Amino acid sequence: MGDMKEISTDELGRIFKQAPFIEYLGLEPVSLGLGECETRLRVAEHHLQQDGYVHAGVMATMADHTAGAAAATMVRPGELVLSAEFKINMLRPALRGELQCRSVVLKPGARFCVVESEVRSVNSEHSTMVAKALVTIAVVPPPEHP
Amino acid sequence: MGDMKEISTDELGRIFKQAPFIEYLGLEPVSLGLGECETRLRVAEHHLQQDGYVHAGVMATMADHTAGAAAATMVRPGELVLSAEFKINMLRPALRGELQCRSVVLKPGARFCVVESEVRSVNSEHSTMVAKALVTIAVVPPPEHP
Amino acid sequence: MGDMKEISTDELGRIFKQAPFIEYLGLEPVSLGLGECETRLRVAEHHLQQDGYVHAGVMATMADHTAGAAAATMVRPGELVLSAEFKINMLRPALRGELQCRSVVLKPGARFCVVESEVRSVNSEHSTMVAKALVTIAVVPPPEHP
Amino acid sequence: MGDMKEISTDELGRIFKQAPFIEYLGLEPVSLGLGECETRLRVAEHHLQQDGYVHAGVMATMADHTAGAAAATMVRPGELVLSAEFKINMLRPALRGELQCRSVVLKPGARFCVVESEVRSVNSEHSTMVAKALVTIAVVPPPEHP
Repeated sequence: MGDMKEISTDELGRIFKQAPFIEYLGLEPVSLGLGECETRLRVAEHHLQQDGYVHAGVMATMADHTAGAAAATMVRPGELVLSAEFKINMLRPALRGELQCRSVVLKPGARFCVVESEVRSVNSEHSTMVAKALVTIAVVPPPEHP
Repeated sequence: MGDMKEISTDELGRIFKQAPFIEYLGLEPVSLGLGECETRLRVAEHHLQQDGYVHAGVMATMADHTAGAAAATMVRPGELVLSAEFKINMLRPALRGELQCRSVVLKPGARFCVVESEVRSVNSEHSTMVAKALVTIAVVPPPEHP
Repeated sequence: MGDMKEISTDELGRIFKQAPFIEYLGLEPVSLGLGECETRLRVAEHHLQQDGYVHAGVMATMADHTAGAAAATMVRPGELVLSAEFKINMLRPALRGELQCRSVVLKPGARFCVVESEVRSVNSEHSTMVAKALVTIAVVPPPEHP
Repeated sequence: MGDMKEISTDELGRIFKQAPFIEYLGLEPVSLGLGECETRLRVAEHHLQQDGYVHAGVMATMADHTAGAAAATMVRPGELVLSAEFKINMLRPALRGELQCRSVVLKPGARFCVVESEVRSVNSEHSTMVAKALVTIAVVPPPEHP
């Protein structure tokens, strides 16, 4: 089971900032708990597809990265997490406003964690589920020292 | 079957430029044929994960968008394509250099197309398969006019 | 939206019996509601893998078929449902006893429904989630008559 | 890399017979090579869906089990393989006749293998791809002895 002191919310913020693609995308951490993570993204023009909706790749990145952070709360100190695979269903078009993602670990493990991610499109009036993903996160042992 | 005059390579280039997220990401079209599309992306600092490898979300966006372009060559004039879902396996870490994606339609259809995408990491010495995806693209009929 | 009179529990039982593979497998309907279906399977020797655990194919069939039944409650009279694709994660080994599956429609649609299936292994003492699936069910219009 | 003496074709046949569900289904091994496996299944009444086509669960079991056998050729003596997850797209309805499955390891690994499976429906006149799957097989270390 994870040592929660290893990943505080501050550290989570740092980790998110340390992943250049995540900063480039504008994905921000919201909260972190044992086996759970929430993130958000304010939708901008550069997140869109030619049809004016948010690109599937944006939601996929969000579902994958948030799942990795949720899994990272359940590994041992020194272990790393790495996305092995994921599957995502786009349920409804996501419009301007804010995207929110919540990832929950379904099954922690010494070798890999299975995580579920839900992406919602939220504005002042509505909150709609726009994508659902199942993510397999590999747990990588720390490098051995001689 | 698609009317190929509908999507020339020029038009493909335009379509890619018209998708703001694709331009923001730096994904470029390379070639287009009936049921096939190739794209590439020069890996930059802002595509990376905190560990220095390309973020899974970059490969996922590439696999998804290239699949959509391949499917778009096989629909009727006026029909649109939309990602319904995809699954991607990350096979090996992708390093700096160039990513190349090739998508091939496995099954065209009036309602959805199934497409396979392969992402390779290419530099002056090596070409390595780094991700493989199966993508379901919905075919959306043109809006009806009164 | 579906006309619920079209698929009563009795009819569901009949449909399950009319699918020879489902009867061969021993999958039984438990309950049916709008956008929901539950099934069960008493694990027998012939459902096992060489290691004594339930074969992944048994859980996959259960997740897929129950999802199809849940989707069938949300289509119009005359329309048929057909599995387009699914993804399943095996979370824990399933032992002897009973398997239960619950499928819930995440997104109904005129062209396809997205359904989530959860498989649990249940005995007198425990109920454990053993698999989770995301299923895309195509909605097929009724054949046209001249 | 696997020690091929560990899994001869004879042993493969035995392994297939030792998995009760595989024998119940009627799945037979055809050939085995390093990172590859082929199987077949003669379609019978009890493999069908209510619409007369082969049930998706039959193709899924075939794609999963054949992938596991292909992965088993690439692990070290004593290691076991276990399905972690898979995704399958049904491309066309499968009719009576014979189903053939070919699985190829895309990426071997010390912790998991990624395998691709293709299912074809074959009769005296045609051979048609009916399903395609991406399968993640976990590699389980042998139990430690004191």
